[in-house]
Amino acid sequence: MYDANSLLAVAVAEFNTRGYDATSMEDLSRAAGITKSSFYHHVSGKEELLRVALGRALDGLFGILEEPAAQEGPALSRLRHIIFRQVEVLMAELPYVTLLLRVRGNTETERWALARRRAFDASIASLVADAVADGEVRAGVEPSLAARLLSGTVNSISEWYRPGRAGSETLPAEVVRIVSEGIIPPA
Amino acid sequence: MYDANSLLAVAVAEFNTRGYDATSMEDLSRAAGITKSSFYHHVSGKEELLRVALGRALDGLFGILEEPAAQEGPALSRLRHIIFRQVEVLMAELPYVTLLLRVRGNTETERWALARRRAFDASIASLVADAVADGEVRAGVEPSLAARLLSGTVNSISEWYRPGRAGSETLPAEVVRIVSEGIIPPA
Repeated sequence: MYDANSLLAVAVAEFNTRGYDATSMEDLSRAAGITKSSFYHHVSGKEELLRVALGRALDGLFGILEEPAAQEGPALSRLRHIIFRQVEVLMAELPYVTLLLRVRGNTETERWALARRRAFDASIASLVADAVADGEVRAGVEPSLAARLLSGTVNSISEWYRPGRAGSETLPAEVVRIVSEGIIPPA
Repeated sequence: MYDANSLLAVAVAEFNTRGYDATSMEDLSRAAGITKSSFYHHVSGKEELLRVALGRALDGLFGILEEPAAQEGPALSRLRHIIFRQVEVLMAELPYVTLLLRVRGNTETERWALARRRAFDASIASLVADAVADGEVRAGVEPSLAARLLSGTVNSISEWYRPGRAGSETLPAEVVRIVSEGIIPPA
């Protein structure tokens, strides 16, 4: 028997492989191995699946910002905590976060998700700006550029990380270290 | 009058907006403002456009590896040159590089492009390994992880960079600085 959750997992895998726009309800019911009408018994259509899937990724990310270590203490230590946890959430919710990162904004649901993603990035940027104001981050780092490159570095992990990969346990700490110390040393 | 080059630009913009799989020759001819049969006068189909577009991005990237500064001198300085130029190529060829970065491997052309992209990334990884062997990069940096995060940081620029953006001139140097010194300072 299929439940809504396993249909969601099937749908997200299809969206990530074909792209959301190119995936039809026929594709989804074929991948789930059920008829299209059974599928419609569970969900109203593919946009509902997209909304639930993107909500799961966004809840994971916004949940980080509610954690005590993200709310208390110097801006820099909050930032380091958030980056560490962002990598963990990405690893734990890989297909959902991957889908979120590929959203283009062609539907209302995608535009909602893009706006939420921007709000998350804006929180990071404001934390970087706080760290600069507190003298914790060297002046000369433009906060919005730093925030974009931080997100970019973290999010790029979704391109190659696969569950069970050797060295996964140390990945969150490695990423925090690398965004702190650099990847290659100064000339 | 349309020439093959302007059709290519139109097609790449459509592929980037809708996704390659979801874009039909009807969509492309509508976007170009010509009939489907005129479109077929210029190109054999959408996969030809994809191949030419991806080739343009790949030629830009592989061209960097042929430059003297990428071939001569210590591994670390070659690496810094390549990163600087990778940002420049991304900025100059934004739609083409964006398309390359979104390729999923559903067609033969996409699999070819993915293989070429992997070969490029492998060159970077081997240069990082050389820099570690030469003692230029601190031990403890796993070369393949460092190479992946380097690519990820650089490639993420395609998500938000738009031509004419303020501060564009300094972006390549800023990125080299940030991957060298870190984005946020160590705890």
